[in-house]
Amino acid sequence: VPQDKPHILFTLGDPAGIGPEVAVKALCDASVRDRSRITVVGDPELLDRAMTLCGCSVDVETVFSRTAGKSPSAADRGKYLFESLKLAVQMCLDGKAEAVVTAPISKAALHAGGFCYPGHTEILGELTGAKPVMMLVGGQLRVVPMTTHCALSEVPALLTRQLVYDTALAVHRSLVRDFALAAPKIAVTGLNPHAGEGGLFGNEEQQIINPAVQSLKEQGIDVTGALPADTAFYFANQGKFDAVIAPTHDQALIPLKLVAFAEGVNVTLNLPIVRTSPGHGTAEDIAWKNQADPTSMIHAARTAIRIAQNRKGA
Amino acid sequence: VPQDKPHILFTLGDPAGIGPEVAVKALCDASVRDRSRITVVGDPELLDRAMTLCGCSVDVETVFSRTAGKSPSAADRGKYLFESLKLAVQMCLDGKAEAVVTAPISKAALHAGGFCYPGHTEILGELTGAKPVMMLVGGQLRVVPMTTHCALSEVPALLTRQLVYDTALAVHRSLVRDFALAAPKIAVTGLNPHAGEGGLFGNEEQQIINPAVQSLKEQGIDVTGALPADTAFYFANQGKFDAVIAPTHDQALIPLKLVAFAEGVNVTLNLPIVRTSPGHGTAEDIAWKNQADPTSMIHAARTAIRIAQNRKGA
Repeated sequence: VPQDKPHILFTLGDPAGIGPEVAVKALCDASVRDRSRITVVGDPELLDRAMTLCGCSVDVETVFSRTAGKSPSAADRGKYLFESLKLAVQMCLDGKAEAVVTAPISKAALHAGGFCYPGHTEILGELTGAKPVMMLVGGQLRVVPMTTHCALSEVPALLTRQLVYDTALAVHRSLVRDFALAAPKIAVTGLNPHAGEGGLFGNEEQQIINPAVQSLKEQGIDVTGALPADTAFYFANQGKFDAVIAPTHDQALIPLKLVAFAEGVNVTLNLPIVRTSPGHGTAEDIAWKNQADPTSMIHAARTAIRIAQNRKGA
Repeated sequence: VPQDKPHILFTLGDPAGIGPEVAVKALCDASVRDRSRITVVGDPELLDRAMTLCGCSVDVETVFSRTAGKSPSAADRGKYLFESLKLAVQMCLDGKAEAVVTAPISKAALHAGGFCYPGHTEILGELTGAKPVMMLVGGQLRVVPMTTHCALSEVPALLTRQLVYDTALAVHRSLVRDFALAAPKIAVTGLNPHAGEGGLFGNEEQQIINPAVQSLKEQGIDVTGALPADTAFYFANQGKFDAVIAPTHDQALIPLKLVAFAEGVNVTLNLPIVRTSPGHGTAEDIAWKNQADPTSMIHAARTAIRIAQNRKGA
């Protein structure tokens, strides 16, 4: 393998889910294999079982993390997941690889193993000492929810000028560095319908979002907002914005899943490493039946490769 | 005109906006004219001016409401708008017409004229003594926001079991009567991300939405929910649901505008009359330049005709 191809790490995800299958199918995808050097960080025996199931076999380097086990308990799966992710992250931090693509993990298994995190993103934040920003990429859209897994009633209190500012700055930097956009255009949507219609319903736009947008503009960053959410995503999908930042989870995820249900990719910004993952979960109900759709994992791998190439080119 | 064609009323909307233009263009559209008998309720002189501007002229009945004036003040426009709407509604209530299609009005003009309503829908509620339910129709989607023009922070307190129940009942009845669906399928989305993920973030699903859905099912109504909003609209767009009811304005409007930006139609349910309107506003900046896109007004007229036909057939 030529040295100029990016070196990408794969984790296999939860042994009880579809992670090993979609990882193997992505490994066997020519568009992924031909443009990268891939190392699987995990249990080579788990990898072998998934390759046998999927009927596809390729030579791939492996780095052993921990035994996944044949019928592991939830606690054992949780320990396997955490150790594999930790090792992959360390390899990226050490400069041994340029990105990690993580197959889906189970929150229940993590908890059973003693790791009380909601998911990958929070673990990555802790392992790298950074504040992760979640971007979802699919179709013509890049969307960034500023709040994620909290009750809607908590969102107004969580929305601060600092959050808007920091998120937009991380998005701007990533669009330039990771997506090779020289002059990216960012939209920030309002929290309230019609972005509050001039303060008629809700003042978070005037008190929080608009002042943050003004500060960003003064830094030379091309940010527009607060825009009404119901038109901002339409215009972004038409190509008028390179990314849309939204106060709530559903504002961002509804349009993303509508235009890119099967192929949405999660990109974690603002980390010292590059990390992508598929948009779906472990789907244990269809695991180990060779039914899992690898589209999102393939797109996640392609996105990691593209980001690694763009960072090299920069 | 044969008597079996539905008799539809048009209002021309704000004389300072694009209403008169899009109304005239819809009047001249063969798909509208051939399938209905249309009467314009408003100022015939305003209609003539718009026909001259658009270069299209058809014979159309008119019922005079009030003089629009050549350069009317905002207060005069507000009075014209209110009187025209009131007369059209009365004609429908009296059985003289089967539906009204309303061109856009300006809230500022209404207020200047002494009519302090946020828009058409609230006036219609007061004139008919009913509780309007707003449905937006476009592409494969029919969406119904349970809250509209209020701050997001007020939504949790406004969401009640009664609201979910009454809204779903109105939607079910309309899907059967107006859209001729024998066994309509309705989805209700959660207020919180992932519909609260079993109470992990927010309990409005367990406390409010799920019990209301259970009551509706006991009435034999096919309602599913609370579903995560980010997947419900995708599945509805795939044809799995005939309508989606959502707690917030943006949950409903983001997917609708994404799939049907130019042709979305507003249908007011739960009234004793049939009323549709285009999804856009008065767009005063491009008014009287013959630039306005009549697509949404044409779709609004077609929808009114189809509903009137379905009600006759029933």
